Amino acid sequence: MGNSFGHLFRITTWGESHGGAVGVVVDGCPPRLALSPDDIQVELDRRRPGQSRITTQRQEVDVCEILSGVFEGQTLGTSILILVHNTDAKSQHYAPFQHIYRPSHADYAYDAKYGIRNWQGGGRASARETIGRVAAGAIAKKLLRERYGTEVIAYVKQVQHLQAEVDPGTVTPEQVEANIARCPDAVCAEAMIERIDWARRQGDSLGGVVEAVARGVPAGWGMPVFDKLEADLAKGLMSLPASKGFEIGSGFAGITLTGSAHNDPFEMRDGQVHTRTNHSGGVQGGISIGEPLLMRVAFKPTATIAKEQETVTDDGEAATLAAKGRHDPCVLPRAVPMVEAMIALVLADHYLRQQGQCGVPSPAAEVRRGE
Amino acid sequence: MGNSFGHLFRITTWGESHGGAVGVVVDGCPPRLALSPDDIQVELDRRRPGQSRITTQRQEVDVCEILSGVFEGQTLGTSILILVHNTDAKSQHYAPFQHIYRPSHADYAYDAKYGIRNWQGGGRASARETIGRVAAGAIAKKLLRERYGTEVIAYVKQVQHLQAEVDPGTVTPEQVEANIARCPDAVCAEAMIERIDWARRQGDSLGGVVEAVARGVPAGWGMPVFDKLEADLAKGLMSLPASKGFEIGSGFAGITLTGSAHNDPFEMRDGQVHTRTNHSGGVQGGISIGEPLLMRVAFKPTATIAKEQETVTDDGEAATLAAKGRHDPCVLPRAVPMVEAMIALVLADHYLRQQGQCGVPSPAAEVRRGE
Amino acid sequence: MGNSFGHLFRITTWGESHGGAVGVVVDGCPPRLALSPDDIQVELDRRRPGQSRITTQRQEVDVCEILSGVFEGQTLGTSILILVHNTDAKSQHYAPFQHIYRPSHADYAYDAKYGIRNWQGGGRASARETIGRVAAGAIAKKLLRERYGTEVIAYVKQVQHLQAEVDPGTVTPEQVEANIARCPDAVCAEAMIERIDWARRQGDSLGGVVEAVARGVPAGWGMPVFDKLEADLAKGLMSLPASKGFEIGSGFAGITLTGSAHNDPFEMRDGQVHTRTNHSGGVQGGISIGEPLLMRVAFKPTATIAKEQETVTDDGEAATLAAKGRHDPCVLPRAVPMVEAMIALVLADHYLRQQGQCGVPSPAAEVRRGE
Amino acid sequence: MGNSFGHLFRITTWGESHGGAVGVVVDGCPPRLALSPDDIQVELDRRRPGQSRITTQRQEVDVCEILSGVFEGQTLGTSILILVHNTDAKSQHYAPFQHIYRPSHADYAYDAKYGIRNWQGGGRASARETIGRVAAGAIAKKLLRERYGTEVIAYVKQVQHLQAEVDPGTVTPEQVEANIARCPDAVCAEAMIERIDWARRQGDSLGGVVEAVARGVPAGWGMPVFDKLEADLAKGLMSLPASKGFEIGSGFAGITLTGSAHNDPFEMRDGQVHTRTNHSGGVQGGISIGEPLLMRVAFKPTATIAKEQETVTDDGEAATLAAKGRHDPCVLPRAVPMVEAMIALVLADHYLRQQGQCGVPSPAAEVRRGE
Repeated sequence: MGNSFGHLFRITTWGESHGGAVGVVVDGCPPRLALSPDDIQVELDRRRPGQSRITTQRQEVDVCEILSGVFEGQTLGTSILILVHNTDAKSQHYAPFQHIYRPSHADYAYDAKYGIRNWQGGGRASARETIGRVAAGAIAKKLLRERYGTEVIAYVKQVQHLQAEVDPGTVTPEQVEANIARCPDAVCAEAMIERIDWARRQGDSLGGVVEAVARGVPAGWGMPVFDKLEADLAKGLMSLPASKGFEIGSGFAGITLTGSAHNDPFEMRDGQVHTRTNHSGGVQGGISIGEPLLMRVAFKPTATIAKEQETVTDDGEAATLAAKGRHDPCVLPRAVPMVEAMIALVLADHYLRQQGQCGVPSPAAEVRRGE
Repeated sequence: MGNSFGHLFRITTWGESHGGAVGVVVDGCPPRLALSPDDIQVELDRRRPGQSRITTQRQEVDVCEILSGVFEGQTLGTSILILVHNTDAKSQHYAPFQHIYRPSHADYAYDAKYGIRNWQGGGRASARETIGRVAAGAIAKKLLRERYGTEVIAYVKQVQHLQAEVDPGTVTPEQVEANIARCPDAVCAEAMIERIDWARRQGDSLGGVVEAVARGVPAGWGMPVFDKLEADLAKGLMSLPASKGFEIGSGFAGITLTGSAHNDPFEMRDGQVHTRTNHSGGVQGGISIGEPLLMRVAFKPTATIAKEQETVTDDGEAATLAAKGRHDPCVLPRAVPMVEAMIALVLADHYLRQQGQCGVPSPAAEVRRGE
Repeated sequence: MGNSFGHLFRITTWGESHGGAVGVVVDGCPPRLALSPDDIQVELDRRRPGQSRITTQRQEVDVCEILSGVFEGQTLGTSILILVHNTDAKSQHYAPFQHIYRPSHADYAYDAKYGIRNWQGGGRASARETIGRVAAGAIAKKLLRERYGTEVIAYVKQVQHLQAEVDPGTVTPEQVEANIARCPDAVCAEAMIERIDWARRQGDSLGGVVEAVARGVPAGWGMPVFDKLEADLAKGLMSLPASKGFEIGSGFAGITLTGSAHNDPFEMRDGQVHTRTNHSGGVQGGISIGEPLLMRVAFKPTATIAKEQETVTDDGEAATLAAKGRHDPCVLPRAVPMVEAMIALVLADHYLRQQGQCGVPSPAAEVRRGE
Repeated sequence: MGNSFGHLFRITTWGESHGGAVGVVVDGCPPRLALSPDDIQVELDRRRPGQSRITTQRQEVDVCEILSGVFEGQTLGTSILILVHNTDAKSQHYAPFQHIYRPSHADYAYDAKYGIRNWQGGGRASARETIGRVAAGAIAKKLLRERYGTEVIAYVKQVQHLQAEVDPGTVTPEQVEANIARCPDAVCAEAMIERIDWARRQGDSLGGVVEAVARGVPAGWGMPVFDKLEADLAKGLMSLPASKGFEIGSGFAGITLTGSAHNDPFEMRDGQVHTRTNHSGGVQGGISIGEPLLMRVAFKPTATIAKEQETVTDDGEAATLAAKGRHDPCVLPRAVPMVEAMIALVLADHYLRQQGQCGVPSPAAEVRRGE
């Protein structure tokens, strides 16, 4: 258990890094959404290894197949199976690690939990697991875009000490894709790329922050008191490999403000209720209010490094280890599509949940927004 | 939907601030756990208003009743209903707010979502809703303590700019309860109290950070890939009123380290696998590894302030507002038992889930920990 | 776990027969449904003991309170708590049964499962548990009636060998309530009442069949392949105390027909697709087709009888037992509102689920039904 | 939504009859269960078309692949993906039905629900969907057999008017497989085969009853009050294509008994609590009591027949239809492995749920069974 996410738009992922394939089942997608493998492939290509000199040099093409749930180019409303075969799987690279626990990886944890692990390349704990998320997220993104014009855009905000300047209100997907760091601040992006390259040469790794904005989210999504929008976003994003922190709106920085400075005054703009500031990050009481959602996720430095490390074997013997596998010196650029996918999955789920309980458009929303 | 939390140890809360009562149903609690109202009341007393001069002066006694699921002092294994009647409910205080949206409260959000709201004191969005969580959390804490000796301890780590020095490895519940700030650093606690008192006199409010540790969590809890332990903790804690951020282990600060500095080397201690450092925060790959869980939650400054604020009415007219209700100038001290409750609920759920899928004690855990 | 039912319109029940109270939380009810305790009380009164000479003579008034989720006579969209205090609880009647397993009751089963049981009056396995179901079902019935004009009507179809003649297409609630047997066939009802009275005098009990029809269910409800409408109906009805069988449409009798006789030919009536016969019972492929749903539930004879029975004690000693408690010689008349409640709960859940995934009205339904 | 089944041992199926493939994800299977494709293939071979002269003559080989969750012959505890490619898919056979609703099929229902349907061979409503169930059921059967020695055996009890004599206490899998009718009563089996052959020649079809027994189920499985064992069994079995009725123990026939004849007296045998009769069908209060589970499922005559039928088109025009596709004149023999699969899935789920909440072996069970 634990391989499913969402309540109405619900995905179940499966697959190990060196098993036969990885993928996802999407259950609950509305019918009659135009969908082709291309819609999914474009996101998988943003996620795949080997896409630039600052990502792992593994060459995994990651071509997706849709094996169910789509008919003559449209979703059927039935469960959608998307599959990507594992190809560039050099499991012999991992043979030395069969009995050694790699520090800050999941090797020991899986052994302690299950009493067995697929030691080839991380098994289920490999970042390959996110292929299913990104594939499903591509569907969620398309659904949101077509039904609400909702845009979900993530980008690299920080790598180690390097912080970018980005305006979440205006940033575009093109700006994100304009460089291999996926940082819309071109100057900072250059510094990030240089820094990541430096880490790679050192056999070391770096962490950072991905920031994300969702624009065009209507008011009313989120299900208090436990399935608040920020709670489900936090869960989705903290379930990504290597994530260590999540914040929304003013986040950790907001705690130094007083309430009078932090509160977002309401005002009318274009006949609609809006807030003048957005310390709330687009969510109040767990429910979207029509302002952009703004959030950040902290990713730790990649656990796989070439430098020698101390550890123990599964027999409890001290050992040293130096990774031979090809790895990402910094997961941030490839994490961007993963973050977008998880946000889109949460939003798609809450769109359907709101439609389920309250109907759409919510009569409430219309009445209250002055129409 | 959205009022339930947990998969095997599952709670469902209900109640508005000024309805007849608030409470919780706990479904899935193991049978034959000794349980009395006193076990629950002690935690409710830590949460209740009016407990000190830096909390709201509302006097809510919050006496709990157990109406099902317990027989002759033991849990039956059936669903447990805990109820607290609403008493000190001065709904007339809220009459002026019937048509005005209080900034950074959930008033507008509930209206936009449901087309109706209980405008008396926040309704379902009131912090009174957490009574059910704290009551259920008291059961979870007891279960964990009796079965595993697990301790969950939270404390106020920061108020506005004031940061406490606390050793999560040794902090005790007594130290937390030693002062009304619930900050185990006595010197810092004094400053915090003074600062909160200052905010109260200003008619303003403050935010801060609650830090929490869970000691005695066995290796193997957590359900990859979505119900990772940190993901469920993030969801639970981000569902608390006023929380804006969550981090585990090294969190946001860890991103400036390189991987070689951040990775936690494994070593053997007392015949057990341990990590030398704990940047992981006790979780790797979404699974506990037997080290203490360490996490932090950011709480924004209380939205209710006495200072005058700009806002709009539900007719879309500009308006000004000054709260008359009694409120907390800083939610942090009362948030401490809420944080403990949510952590305990997540852990109890994962204890049962691990027992369900893998049996207990996990044969794996025994083999792998050198026995 | 196991005390919740439904996915979007979700109920959680709690309470033992001799604990403090019994009740239910309803989560997911749409907002702005007019709701008062009277809406619920009318159904509880149909369920309560002591309502006629052929039901148990226990006098339980079963007055309900709504403690949350309703404000100024309308649902808020938040969780609704309904509570009924236990009153006429003569637990001393049950003292002789503390260590004796009553045959075909749940005494032994609960002991085997939980290692503990509330031996006072059946505890959680008592039919008092259905109070929460009937209360929640009253809300579901009202919701369906107001939104779709859907009517759910159940009635006693058979008591032991006595079979009534009832036309499910035209039967009315008034006809059901016209006699204490809740059998709309007045002649058969007389015979049933006489037969039940005979069984009571014998210290024995009788079983029978409740038939139910749901009229005004739109096409499109049901979620293949597991949450088919008939599957969820079967689960809901087989979860009622004493139920031993479920069938829909032609049911067990239909198996003797050939396919050419059993298939329901489609035809157009009033510009709508209809079937000429209804062997399908209103469901095809797990989805409603706009025809009346027709189903039957078998209830075994009440397990509690006055006649002496052989059994064992919880120490494994042979024993004899003769019930002293007041009991129903036949559960059928009181099962009628329970059956209606479970059907309404399933339908309300699928109404919201269909609205969630496909929107309402389903564009499909409009297109395909020739509009 | 609706394509998942189970709470801890949870499956999600996907696939249309003429899409790329069909299959299942199994989430929650305990780790370290020996598992190979052969374990699954043997059950798929019992389900596949073309296996005998009384099943459809479609030749679908239905070879399964395990693409995740198994490593070196053992389950990993992670999600298991099983896939079967669609091969003998003559979609041109179905072209005439693109705009015609086949009576008592799901064509119209899917159109009404989703506004779109895969008209090639039934799409998601095809019995091919059960491949995923049978594959997952094979794992559940193996798990139960290895951990508890539990045996799940189903067989054809009745075809139209032909009723077999079978002793559920002693029937063996070999007896079931001894003839192509899967009826352990050899004499009756001959008559059934002849009758089915007759129906096939008539271009017509037959229904019947599958009976099933589960032996070796320990006391204590089942989760009152909604997830009672019989309720989950009913749901699982009523979700199978063509099923119209379910009963457990005495079922519909039991209603003519009085309570004194129906109650199952307890007695001690071999130091264990047993019941002398088994009208309860192995379940009391929704919980297994250690006696064999005994249940029956009614299957309607196959909807696909060669005889001409009246119906309408999706434009609302009257039409006649005669099936050209190859079909089963009676689904019963192939339904047998499906019934076993669903029962095994329910039992595996409840085994894990009981282990989750109460631990295993339940201390209760030991104490109370006189040990």
